[in-house]
Amino acid sequence: MAIEIERRFLVRKDIRSLCRDGLSIVQGYLPSDDGRTVRVRVAGPDATLTVKSPRRGPCREEVEHPLPLDLALGLLRHSCRGGLIEKTRYLSHHHGLCWEIDVFGGENAGLVIAEVELSRPDQLVPLPDWVGAEVTNRAAYSNSSLARSPIRGWASAA
Amino acid sequence: MAIEIERRFLVRKDIRSLCRDGLSIVQGYLPSDDGRTVRVRVAGPDATLTVKSPRRGPCREEVEHPLPLDLALGLLRHSCRGGLIEKTRYLSHHHGLCWEIDVFGGENAGLVIAEVELSRPDQLVPLPDWVGAEVTNRAAYSNSSLARSPIRGWASAA
Repeated sequence: MAIEIERRFLVRKDIRSLCRDGLSIVQGYLPSDDGRTVRVRVAGPDATLTVKSPRRGPCREEVEHPLPLDLALGLLRHSCRGGLIEKTRYLSHHHGLCWEIDVFGGENAGLVIAEVELSRPDQLVPLPDWVGAEVTNRAAYSNSSLARSPIRGWASAA
Repeated sequence: MAIEIERRFLVRKDIRSLCRDGLSIVQGYLPSDDGRTVRVRVAGPDATLTVKSPRRGPCREEVEHPLPLDLALGLLRHSCRGGLIEKTRYLSHHHGLCWEIDVFGGENAGLVIAEVELSRPDQLVPLPDWVGAEVTNRAAYSNSSLARSPIRGWASAA
């Protein structure tokens, strides 16, 4: 069981210059009735099954396990509930921290979220000038929520 | 992808003398919308995730992958649909074939099914005197069906 400490931000500037060597990610969620998320992810040639506890501020517990690619693809196609998340992940280093910039596609096209993993919850985070509003605690921006309720439906629901 | 070739029979005689050194098994099923079963099994200290195609006679395709025990227990508790299968498995050798005798508990208590894995579909199977009716092609006796519709409900539904 690892603890993931993470802060998440919308990205507000044109970040095309940062978008080199992206990693294609498709992920979906198995049902879970206890508030944890059970994520199936295919990232490039690799696949994983990851269970995450509900978030407490920037922290959540996480267990990750590799899966064979064909098994993961089958789970994504036939066992996940809600839609799938499609995104391309780019990495950018800023003042010693590694930012993961997720450019969403599919039903969430237009959304860009940058995440930074920390070693402690109160760690100072020097913000790059391209980050915008923090969404760490905004549940609607979690990947599992975006799978169920992608942003394409937000305007019509508002 | 392996091919599982298996015939299954009800057990009609008292088989207590065969029931030594049983292996406790708990298994459940993740949702799947394409006719395959996605089984999470904890057998003693080991856990697996197994995808099986629909059965064609005694044959089905199978992909099995080990899981960490805590992850499997979480999936059984919170992500599987339908009930769980609880059974104890005993092994018995007869004329060179290894029979797996599953003594069910929980909602399927009273049911005993013996399975034998074969190397070809038309292989001759010398039957021990304790086997009864063959249920290879009786879908209601599949483990995934018994998880959704255990035998405890069969009498009242009849």
